[in-house]
Amino acid sequence: MARAKESDASLTRDEAALAARFGYLFNSYYEAVGPRHARARRGDLSRPPVADIVAYRHHVDSAMRRLMAGNGCGRAAPLIELGLHHEQQHQELLLMDIKHVFGSNPLAPAYADVAPAGPAPAARLAFADFAGGLHEIGAAEDGTFVFDNETPRHAVLLTDFRLATRPVTNGEYLEFIRDGGYSQPAHWLADGWAWVQANDITQPLYWRREEPGQPAGVWSSQSGPGGWREFTLTGERPLDPTAPVCHVSYYEADAYARWSGHRLPSEAEWEVAAIADLAERDPETDANLLGSGLWHPVAAAPSTAGSSSRLGQMFGDVWEWTASPYSAYPGYRPSAGAVGEYNGKFMINQMVLRGGCALTPPGHVRASYRNFFYPHQRWQMAGFRLACDG
Amino acid sequence: MARAKESDASLTRDEAALAARFGYLFNSYYEAVGPRHARARRGDLSRPPVADIVAYRHHVDSAMRRLMAGNGCGRAAPLIELGLHHEQQHQELLLMDIKHVFGSNPLAPAYADVAPAGPAPAARLAFADFAGGLHEIGAAEDGTFVFDNETPRHAVLLTDFRLATRPVTNGEYLEFIRDGGYSQPAHWLADGWAWVQANDITQPLYWRREEPGQPAGVWSSQSGPGGWREFTLTGERPLDPTAPVCHVSYYEADAYARWSGHRLPSEAEWEVAAIADLAERDPETDANLLGSGLWHPVAAAPSTAGSSSRLGQMFGDVWEWTASPYSAYPGYRPSAGAVGEYNGKFMINQMVLRGGCALTPPGHVRASYRNFFYPHQRWQMAGFRLACDG
Amino acid sequence: MARAKESDASLTRDEAALAARFGYLFNSYYEAVGPRHARARRGDLSRPPVADIVAYRHHVDSAMRRLMAGNGCGRAAPLIELGLHHEQQHQELLLMDIKHVFGSNPLAPAYADVAPAGPAPAARLAFADFAGGLHEIGAAEDGTFVFDNETPRHAVLLTDFRLATRPVTNGEYLEFIRDGGYSQPAHWLADGWAWVQANDITQPLYWRREEPGQPAGVWSSQSGPGGWREFTLTGERPLDPTAPVCHVSYYEADAYARWSGHRLPSEAEWEVAAIADLAERDPETDANLLGSGLWHPVAAAPSTAGSSSRLGQMFGDVWEWTASPYSAYPGYRPSAGAVGEYNGKFMINQMVLRGGCALTPPGHVRASYRNFFYPHQRWQMAGFRLACDG
Amino acid sequence: MARAKESDASLTRDEAALAARFGYLFNSYYEAVGPRHARARRGDLSRPPVADIVAYRHHVDSAMRRLMAGNGCGRAAPLIELGLHHEQQHQELLLMDIKHVFGSNPLAPAYADVAPAGPAPAARLAFADFAGGLHEIGAAEDGTFVFDNETPRHAVLLTDFRLATRPVTNGEYLEFIRDGGYSQPAHWLADGWAWVQANDITQPLYWRREEPGQPAGVWSSQSGPGGWREFTLTGERPLDPTAPVCHVSYYEADAYARWSGHRLPSEAEWEVAAIADLAERDPETDANLLGSGLWHPVAAAPSTAGSSSRLGQMFGDVWEWTASPYSAYPGYRPSAGAVGEYNGKFMINQMVLRGGCALTPPGHVRASYRNFFYPHQRWQMAGFRLACDG
Repeated sequence: MARAKESDASLTRDEAALAARFGYLFNSYYEAVGPRHARARRGDLSRPPVADIVAYRHHVDSAMRRLMAGNGCGRAAPLIELGLHHEQQHQELLLMDIKHVFGSNPLAPAYADVAPAGPAPAARLAFADFAGGLHEIGAAEDGTFVFDNETPRHAVLLTDFRLATRPVTNGEYLEFIRDGGYSQPAHWLADGWAWVQANDITQPLYWRREEPGQPAGVWSSQSGPGGWREFTLTGERPLDPTAPVCHVSYYEADAYARWSGHRLPSEAEWEVAAIADLAERDPETDANLLGSGLWHPVAAAPSTAGSSSRLGQMFGDVWEWTASPYSAYPGYRPSAGAVGEYNGKFMINQMVLRGGCALTPPGHVRASYRNFFYPHQRWQMAGFRLACDG
Repeated sequence: MARAKESDASLTRDEAALAARFGYLFNSYYEAVGPRHARARRGDLSRPPVADIVAYRHHVDSAMRRLMAGNGCGRAAPLIELGLHHEQQHQELLLMDIKHVFGSNPLAPAYADVAPAGPAPAARLAFADFAGGLHEIGAAEDGTFVFDNETPRHAVLLTDFRLATRPVTNGEYLEFIRDGGYSQPAHWLADGWAWVQANDITQPLYWRREEPGQPAGVWSSQSGPGGWREFTLTGERPLDPTAPVCHVSYYEADAYARWSGHRLPSEAEWEVAAIADLAERDPETDANLLGSGLWHPVAAAPSTAGSSSRLGQMFGDVWEWTASPYSAYPGYRPSAGAVGEYNGKFMINQMVLRGGCALTPPGHVRASYRNFFYPHQRWQMAGFRLACDG
Repeated sequence: MARAKESDASLTRDEAALAARFGYLFNSYYEAVGPRHARARRGDLSRPPVADIVAYRHHVDSAMRRLMAGNGCGRAAPLIELGLHHEQQHQELLLMDIKHVFGSNPLAPAYADVAPAGPAPAARLAFADFAGGLHEIGAAEDGTFVFDNETPRHAVLLTDFRLATRPVTNGEYLEFIRDGGYSQPAHWLADGWAWVQANDITQPLYWRREEPGQPAGVWSSQSGPGGWREFTLTGERPLDPTAPVCHVSYYEADAYARWSGHRLPSEAEWEVAAIADLAERDPETDANLLGSGLWHPVAAAPSTAGSSSRLGQMFGDVWEWTASPYSAYPGYRPSAGAVGEYNGKFMINQMVLRGGCALTPPGHVRASYRNFFYPHQRWQMAGFRLACDG
Repeated sequence: MARAKESDASLTRDEAALAARFGYLFNSYYEAVGPRHARARRGDLSRPPVADIVAYRHHVDSAMRRLMAGNGCGRAAPLIELGLHHEQQHQELLLMDIKHVFGSNPLAPAYADVAPAGPAPAARLAFADFAGGLHEIGAAEDGTFVFDNETPRHAVLLTDFRLATRPVTNGEYLEFIRDGGYSQPAHWLADGWAWVQANDITQPLYWRREEPGQPAGVWSSQSGPGGWREFTLTGERPLDPTAPVCHVSYYEADAYARWSGHRLPSEAEWEVAAIADLAERDPETDANLLGSGLWHPVAAAPSTAGSSSRLGQMFGDVWEWTASPYSAYPGYRPSAGAVGEYNGKFMINQMVLRGGCALTPPGHVRASYRNFFYPHQRWQMAGFRLACDG
């Protein structure tokens, strides 16, 4: 099959040149991979022509098919699996970034032309009880794919706690605003208050109050309670008071919790509660494990979310801020090589979020999954759920 | 013709909505026009779909045709003429900006696929003599269009001076670099030296020295003297030592002049010399009044540029920095209304450039034209010409 | 005693005016106390005349004596005790700040004129073993003063671990530098590497390598290994390779630990080990519980510090970075009012340090004490001790 | 006299060490003198003990006496004279800096304890006429000391102009504020408007409006029109509506002039007018050539300042912004060596001020003197005088 080999080689030669150029541009942060374009100046880059993009995609697909068909696949399999899960993260990040770019545009263009469901009655806020003691969290290494930061599975010591049966809603958050929440330093962590002051923060990201002089967004003809509207991937919409609040920073989540007399759960509390709740469900009949929102979280039906004994909307509505700084689990060992830069080197200054959001690919959601962001960030679809001591 | 009128009106209604949105986005700096999108955040804006752009263009063309066909045109004529000249400035700025965006891209993509002319022999540097005394500069108000900052025509008092017969070349500028020009504070204005230090400036913008690890630009297979290459709108090319140096700041032009024992001309000297030179030419037979470069300045033929008695490359190769701060001419009066913001409010902190460059529309070049930039800026195609006392 | 009361009142009137002015200036960060001078602009303030300072001190002393002699003291006692401990923190901070100001001065002036002890032989690095399981940490509320962040006492779950018998020394840290530690991103947390790059960090704060052109510090006639000198409150001195390394950031401590194949201990591990070690000592005969350094940490004698079974230099040499983010203990409740701003609102983005340093007042050192700084800070006297899994 | 020489040498040895240290610290911006402490970090330096300062002063005095008594004086004389004039500039700068430091202190301490003169009736605003044509400005090189930037004397061409007989007063400037001057972009240069917006400028530096919550300054019991007070070196005082406005930027001066329908004079106009006016005075009998203010400009008596035919307050009240960018006079040659850095290298981005202020040493004031500051600066005591075309 010399001919095939030749054509492969010739393809590879052209592709190598392409890959060398894009390798420099596409290296986001891997120090081990070599020099890269400064991240802050990425926005200055002109886009390649569509034909180049398609050619590059074809190159990647061909090369992957060759690799998987060949002998090397066995060795590469773990890396390919990691790559697929990494790509799922990109799917979500792309939507987050598109939302951010469109949301910064005063014309508020819509990404998807879908009529939103109207507000539904929100489930009453209730708290489920969980017993303390020794519990196990983290992923068992049973061959199912997990990221290294979810391991090793280990024991944690908890005291009795209570966890809210659903996330805090827009309507509840609006009460915090109306009560002067953003102008009372007593509710805020010191760094949070400094962030509020320095950035003149008065509301969640993407909330906008009707103002006469400003150009109107695509969906802006109506507005929600108090004249509030919210930018979504389906355009600007009246604020839905029953949907989970989202695009808030850790500082905002923590301030709300303090204002309301509660606290945020630790990630261990969240995971223990999630596992206990899943154990009581029948995945065959329980269709509501994942969020029902399309592009944007919506209020779950009262029957499934937020009964006084069952947790609702744990997965797939909004990423939920926890009170846990992102640290290594006891005994954690990062992988060797560039892959080892994937998680471990970010274990400082960030907080853990759990559960997944309306933009997360369904296969990417699990109870042990640890997402993480800086406490001031809010372009990710993050909300929160209250907790208190048992 | 009720029907036509109706269709006009209906067109106008749709267009009005379009225009309201774009009016907010497209107001670059006119305080009198109202609120506008923050300039520094323009790069974050997503682009409108191509169909919207074409529709908007159609709207503008139609509306202008209606206006010019109607009775209002007489009144609007001065504004339309100003708009056409303003649009010529945009033509040049678009090319400057495209060059900047492409030049920031490590892949150095080419805007135009034109094979560059090879280096030509450069004319010998010589100086032409001009007599001092009372001269007149500025535009006579004879009905020909000029910008308000070129008026009023007025007398200036000069002493004898000499002006170089061509701009400084890349090859000459390279000598300044090789002599340690960028590391000798004595050559520099204090603000210039601070700019060099703060921005780590060691060469003109778009110059690049061959480096092994970096991805290669489109035209980078060869390089010029000392391994230097220059990014142009036709891609990265070997540095041509005979072409005028360009994309230098005022600070660099001034430092070079001091290093070489000369100075930069005042704008009055430049204009007086340009007028005297033009008077001796026959526009019918002299085809070389404008620069011969396409997208990029090139060395003019020795026969036309840089003889010891005649000035060469005064127009259309590189904008030439003068030693004159951009100020109002004696008796200057800005126009009323938003048009009055066009020039006068920029008369601080900037320096005057004269002559036009290889990107300037030919009809936009004249002896009295005053361009202006901040002394640290260099994304415009700016070079310089030496002068000294007579 | 009407007369005494009168004089009190008259004193109070003058003092009230004084206090009103200084109250504005001296409010460092208490939102509940009211407006205050911007922290970043404090350095611009002119100092009050010495006579005003003495008068103000006299005012504070008199007012406190009156308060403590009167009936109100019982109520105020907890606040006075808190104030005394807060003042002890200021004693240390003053020395840290003086060191920073003097250390930023190229003349390196000495604060105290004390001849340093010469280098002593450093104890061999060894690791002591500690068993995991359930342990208790935090301060018992038995009436002894503690800060609220040390409470409540609570159980923690640990796995077996080993803790170094002494902190890392300057000599050991020098090996990290010589091995290219500051230029290998693989050793660093992502934020740490960004900090290294942005600030051009190549050594601990206050280390300086002999350079010919620079003005010499007071003690600079000699230098330590590799030409290294270290600025101390007793002037610039040759680097002592046996003393604990200090004035390093968390990022540096963490990078060294990774480079050496170890990790930093958690604060629970540190406290459990400290308590176990204290239990085996006889405070009557063991004079070496506190650091032996005056103004600066020095190597402890090998006999007391760093035997293979006993921990040395746990208290009073250098604050030791732990791997624990500064968070609330389970069940933590901040005090009410302005005092509640003292600790809780800083529980984000900072890391815990344990043990005390050569500048800490002896009465301020205890096993449950939690100090905290941002991971990039290093003007505090911070070093670190290695740990690993058991 | 070997002994004297020895003692000189021994003195010199100690002094040399002292001088080497201070030389590094005291080099403000002379690149030719060598490395120096970063200017922005000067405020961090601890002050030397008073004894060291006195010793250093003694050293400088002794060394200067030796130099002037010796043979070298002849050669050094021009440098000594330059040094004395430079020192006079420092005298003024010290007062400006003290004012700035004290004025940034919310307690507004007074530098000098002098009761201010009450407001006097201000002279009516009038304009004196001057004929255009060829005039001479600049300093004649007749042996009297001048700075190099005042030379060479040269001809300038002017058109007829009118110059106000006194500077704009606080009361007049207040009208500009009341008329919304700081919120109307049409009055402002583009850079000036950006400066106003970015720094939230609403009044001259040191103006303060009575506010209840703020600590009161030393002289603050009363206030001027509209509740305005002004910080001066003699403490905070009611704004005097008849005194010249001062501590305004060029942008503010230019905006006021535009608002009032006038313009600022060019420096040539100012100097020509000043010389003409001086020629008509008898210095023996005219005691009012210099400003009458002590530490602060005050309104001149109507009889001497501001009659319709005579110019008042040209010297020694407030530095007067002119419309002239600071550039080299035709034929200007800077001195060689470090002294050449004194003036020439600042000839960019700054504007010329003329006349001197209430803090300027009287011997430092002359008609040809060219002061210069950036257009946004206002910590210098700068006001302005209106002009218009004749």
